[in-house]
Amino acid sequence: MTKVREPQRLRASIDAVKELIISKGLKPGDPMPTEVQLAELLDVSRANLREAIRTLATLDIIEVRHGTGMFVGEMSLRPLVEGLTFKGVVLPGKDFETLRQVVEVRLALDLAIAPQVVEQLEGRETPELSDVCVEMANRGERGENFASEDREFHLTIAGLIGNELYGQLVAAFWDVYTLVGPRLGVPTPRDMADTVRAHQDMLDAAKSGDLEAYRDAVQAHYAPLLRVLDSTTGAAVAG
Amino acid sequence: MTKVREPQRLRASIDAVKELIISKGLKPGDPMPTEVQLAELLDVSRANLREAIRTLATLDIIEVRHGTGMFVGEMSLRPLVEGLTFKGVVLPGKDFETLRQVVEVRLALDLAIAPQVVEQLEGRETPELSDVCVEMANRGERGENFASEDREFHLTIAGLIGNELYGQLVAAFWDVYTLVGPRLGVPTPRDMADTVRAHQDMLDAAKSGDLEAYRDAVQAHYAPLLRVLDSTTGAAVAG
Repeated sequence: MTKVREPQRLRASIDAVKELIISKGLKPGDPMPTEVQLAELLDVSRANLREAIRTLATLDIIEVRHGTGMFVGEMSLRPLVEGLTFKGVVLPGKDFETLRQVVEVRLALDLAIAPQVVEQLEGRETPELSDVCVEMANRGERGENFASEDREFHLTIAGLIGNELYGQLVAAFWDVYTLVGPRLGVPTPRDMADTVRAHQDMLDAAKSGDLEAYRDAVQAHYAPLLRVLDSTTGAAVAG
Repeated sequence: MTKVREPQRLRASIDAVKELIISKGLKPGDPMPTEVQLAELLDVSRANLREAIRTLATLDIIEVRHGTGMFVGEMSLRPLVEGLTFKGVVLPGKDFETLRQVVEVRLALDLAIAPQVVEQLEGRETPELSDVCVEMANRGERGENFASEDREFHLTIAGLIGNELYGQLVAAFWDVYTLVGPRLGVPTPRDMADTVRAHQDMLDAAKSGDLEAYRDAVQAHYAPLLRVLDSTTGAAVAG
């Protein structure tokens, strides 16, 4: 381990790069100085700087586009997805525990924004969401995967409430589910049909301004998934 | 940028380390092979491996303890805190936008778990939570910061509901708030007193099994904070 640099020095370089972004007022997408310029500006070694850049790229605070240069990153929740996804497959004997937790938090978040969603959609035409529901139903009837329509539905709903973090969390948890979920096996035709209907019911309830019906539809939406997760968790413990 | 290694090769090394953790059935806290052993086992260059380790350490998938060795990490939400905290200070003209979003999501999560919290605490003695509330009140009366008691209160509540991810999210958002919040300035004595009372009200409502009163206390808990954030956001736009 002799070649590992002091974490304090690395921390200092990371903080120096962050300070520079703040002091120059840079925002996501703005170009950063080159590696050579940065090493000079911040008075740090190239080796140390490169480790700092790697750390900041992992956190999506910096984006390295190969052949183009360095830019301020989007500061997305991508690191959260990577960590949770791995955690979802790595914990021995509790394979689906993380997945169940993710689904429960998704349910909690969907219930929490229910009043705002209903307020936004009541009495409105929603051609985009209606189209997504129709496409989902068509795919479901053909026994095809409709994960992409499903994701779009939830992101559109999340986008209604003027809180970007909320939408990012929904997207992050969706991605974790998409990456770990296939290990649950193929959903039954009945579960697929229930899921399609739950989305249509959520939309209908919101448009008619019925908060209770919307909450019921949200619960129904997650019910097949939680049923599968409960039975799988039980099976994993029994096996 | 000629020295930057191919991202595909780095990705492959990262995935190889992850595969090794899975195939050996390692779990958080278990020792990893040394860097030399890993390079040999996975047939990757030391330089490439070191970048992969740096990435995985940033994601808390690996923990490098200097002088001791490498261990499987806790896969915590620390990367989420680091990214969100920086985002909270970096976005020009929207300094407190991220903070407001964090507080709104905290409120949503607290409301979402309200039924389970009330079910868990109804009719029970809660010496730990009661002590935390008393200590918070004492500190508040002396005009002292009670962030650590506040954090403990919310983590204890979150710990009641058997979903570890939920507690981690509460902790992560709390940490973001603690790091960015001081930029809001010193809270008024009135806001401090309101916050102390809101925690006591949450506890009393839960113990008496009154879900509606609990939800009201949760709303009252976040009200002073959202008021400050609304006025600050307004001021930032006006300024």
